[in-house]
Amino acid sequence: MQILQGDAARAALTRSFSEIPVPESVLTRIEATFGERLTPDEVVARILADVRARGDDALRDWTERLDGTRPAALEVTRDEMGAAQIDPALHDAIRLAVSRVRAFYEQQPAHGFLEHGPDGALGQLIRPLSRVGVYVPGGLAPLVSTLIHTAVPARVAGVPEIIVTTPPARDGSVNPAILVAAREVGVDRVFRVGGAQGIGALAYGTASVPAVDKIAGPGNLFVVIAKRMVYGQTGIESLPGPTETLVVADDSADPRFVAADLLAQAEHLGAEPVLVSTSRDLLVEVQNKLNGQLEALPEPNRSWARDSVVSRMKVVLAADLAEALDLANLYAPEHLCLLTRDPWSLLGQVRRAGGVFVGEASMEALGDYVAGPSHVMPTGGTARFMSPVNVRDFQNIISVVGVNEETLRRIGPPAALLARAEGLEAHARAIESRLTPEAPEAHPEATLEALEEAGGQGL
Amino acid sequence: MQILQGDAARAALTRSFSEIPVPESVLTRIEATFGERLTPDEVVARILADVRARGDDALRDWTERLDGTRPAALEVTRDEMGAAQIDPALHDAIRLAVSRVRAFYEQQPAHGFLEHGPDGALGQLIRPLSRVGVYVPGGLAPLVSTLIHTAVPARVAGVPEIIVTTPPARDGSVNPAILVAAREVGVDRVFRVGGAQGIGALAYGTASVPAVDKIAGPGNLFVVIAKRMVYGQTGIESLPGPTETLVVADDSADPRFVAADLLAQAEHLGAEPVLVSTSRDLLVEVQNKLNGQLEALPEPNRSWARDSVVSRMKVVLAADLAEALDLANLYAPEHLCLLTRDPWSLLGQVRRAGGVFVGEASMEALGDYVAGPSHVMPTGGTARFMSPVNVRDFQNIISVVGVNEETLRRIGPPAALLARAEGLEAHARAIESRLTPEAPEAHPEATLEALEEAGGQGL
Repeated sequence: MQILQGDAARAALTRSFSEIPVPESVLTRIEATFGERLTPDEVVARILADVRARGDDALRDWTERLDGTRPAALEVTRDEMGAAQIDPALHDAIRLAVSRVRAFYEQQPAHGFLEHGPDGALGQLIRPLSRVGVYVPGGLAPLVSTLIHTAVPARVAGVPEIIVTTPPARDGSVNPAILVAAREVGVDRVFRVGGAQGIGALAYGTASVPAVDKIAGPGNLFVVIAKRMVYGQTGIESLPGPTETLVVADDSADPRFVAADLLAQAEHLGAEPVLVSTSRDLLVEVQNKLNGQLEALPEPNRSWARDSVVSRMKVVLAADLAEALDLANLYAPEHLCLLTRDPWSLLGQVRRAGGVFVGEASMEALGDYVAGPSHVMPTGGTARFMSPVNVRDFQNIISVVGVNEETLRRIGPPAALLARAEGLEAHARAIESRLTPEAPEAHPEATLEALEEAGGQGL
Repeated sequence: MQILQGDAARAALTRSFSEIPVPESVLTRIEATFGERLTPDEVVARILADVRARGDDALRDWTERLDGTRPAALEVTRDEMGAAQIDPALHDAIRLAVSRVRAFYEQQPAHGFLEHGPDGALGQLIRPLSRVGVYVPGGLAPLVSTLIHTAVPARVAGVPEIIVTTPPARDGSVNPAILVAAREVGVDRVFRVGGAQGIGALAYGTASVPAVDKIAGPGNLFVVIAKRMVYGQTGIESLPGPTETLVVADDSADPRFVAADLLAQAEHLGAEPVLVSTSRDLLVEVQNKLNGQLEALPEPNRSWARDSVVSRMKVVLAADLAEALDLANLYAPEHLCLLTRDPWSLLGQVRRAGGVFVGEASMEALGDYVAGPSHVMPTGGTARFMSPVNVRDFQNIISVVGVNEETLRRIGPPAALLARAEGLEAHARAIESRLTPEAPEAHPEATLEALEEAGGQGL
């Protein structure tokens, strides 16, 4: 274990702007599928163009080719949705997660303002998006938590229609746990189509799948590339990359817990666990516990976790907690865990992170499921400028300008002056046409409550 | 003038997902500059790669090649900033715009929450971004309003450092009106570098220009392509395209004002004016007024406006105001002008727009300068999923999870169950390690006010 300090630590925690490396295994799989060595970008561009051109036929063809099943019906029927059953304890856990995530987002302030003053009325209306698509990764395990942690904030935001796309299993089925979670969240429709073709369906729409205003949810490399490519035509909530956790621990931390939290991070494929401590002794003890806990993990988790620990884990000795927090802000981690004597006292110094997990009872793994905030948080240093998935992601602001005639007479002339300075003569004239004796009519104004209620109904 | 109705109107106002067409003149200019026929994407990729590799030298070379001047000092000095002087009336107009935009954004709700309940503490902290870059287009006219309408919301958000990049004139100078506006807004630094190279400087940083967390502001095709390419490494506030206005007018509207508002839109290069009315008579009268006002415009505005009117203007006859509003929501215009008998009564039906301009005294041209809300609004139908520039664009949410031990004991086991259902064994173990008799320690909690105050200081 190499312990970094000072400038070396700063250098190691400074994000570089390199592209996400494409594993050789992915390139090999592409070559096997396509008969030529394409880049993932080329593959995704090809799939998206095909979905746009051929719609449902393209979705069926790509699903057959990439997921090994050809779905007759792309949409999961109401009967299939209703019939899905899972272990009652797991069902209860899903209910708990849904209710806690919902309760959390119901607290998020999400109102506009409409100021009726001497100027007339100026303000911001808040409107839910009309239709949102949630991508739920398939693969080895059903990521029911991802569905809950994206669709629930959208529901709380007031989005009237939420649809889910997820890759089918080889027998064409969708995992029942996903269907149960979709039911509990109140998802409107579920489609069995994944990968870049699933993103294409949500962006362009097909005969079966309606186009959405925004796509949320993480996915594999191809899904993320597809989200980036459709951005602008459709909204996306983020470009989630490999996950990461930075743990700040002092000499009071229990090395078992520190090791357990790092390992929970490490078992994600490609994850980056980072430990910053003010105690050299703790760093050594954590390493010992980590080795023991790693060996005790079953496969394949052990191999994945070992790869993260060996290839990407960073261990830093900080001079004091102030330096530790500085390094954390520099790194801007998706998850920041504070395992110190007085973790709340550090929170004021946190300026860049997706989520902060305060104290030993608030491990990040709890946040992945039932704590409340969405586990979809900004990765790869994007916490410098992005937020975790939240209600705002599913609402727009509409600016309202409703000044009265007196105000226009006062601010119109300087506005016309600015317009001419910018060479925009017709702008100046549009203003000045209203400054003639024939005054524009005054109108009664509206209240914010009435407007937001009226506009919240969706399409 | 072709008057569209019903399905034809719906079809005309449905956004297609086509790429922005590249004018032949742009391709010709590229060929003249590069000696080969590159696409704008290829040009931008080349410039960005060069800025990343060679920093300031690349900025100087590209500025010389594309803007015809080789800046010795890329940064505008404090002395130059201080010395900039403009016509006092224009200076006053800039002060008015700054103060009104500031007053508007100071009303925007921008607080988090931290709920201390029986569960412990859960919440969202709001943090300003650390450094924001504002791109200010140069060209024929100094767009001081763009600087004001992006930098002021960033300042109100609490961003501690705001820098501006803008292309220099052929003599290497930056327009004094831009420098005065920068001073009035309190911009920290101004750099004379524009185009894709200016975006590259903000994204990657060079010896002279610091990398920023987010880039705001509109620009030409190359600037927008560059913003799209650096997105993910740096935040961007939007991908602004050609501007558009949709006017809803009934038989009470004054055709002079309707024509003036459409023309103010039309004089922007590539703009799309749309008129939807319930009165056929009004449509005809507006056309007459528009022709007269168009001929009275000076050049080059007349030619640009004529091109917008002839090539892109759409005129729709709606059965009633309900249909007019439905069509407006379908189109999701950047600007929606309501010129009707009782415009406030329509506002509740508006679900998709960047800004709504209510009544004849609130022409869109006023909103471009001094009304209050930022004039940087979502274009091209992106109002379906994006908001005008606002305080939130310059702040992040950080989720806070600080549950207590009792809560962990209650929600930990179902969380572990969900983790195992998703195949994440180390997650389950990280949770269960804390459910052993040796309980984690309790910690005192913090208040939202103290945390937001502490975190608002920036880097």
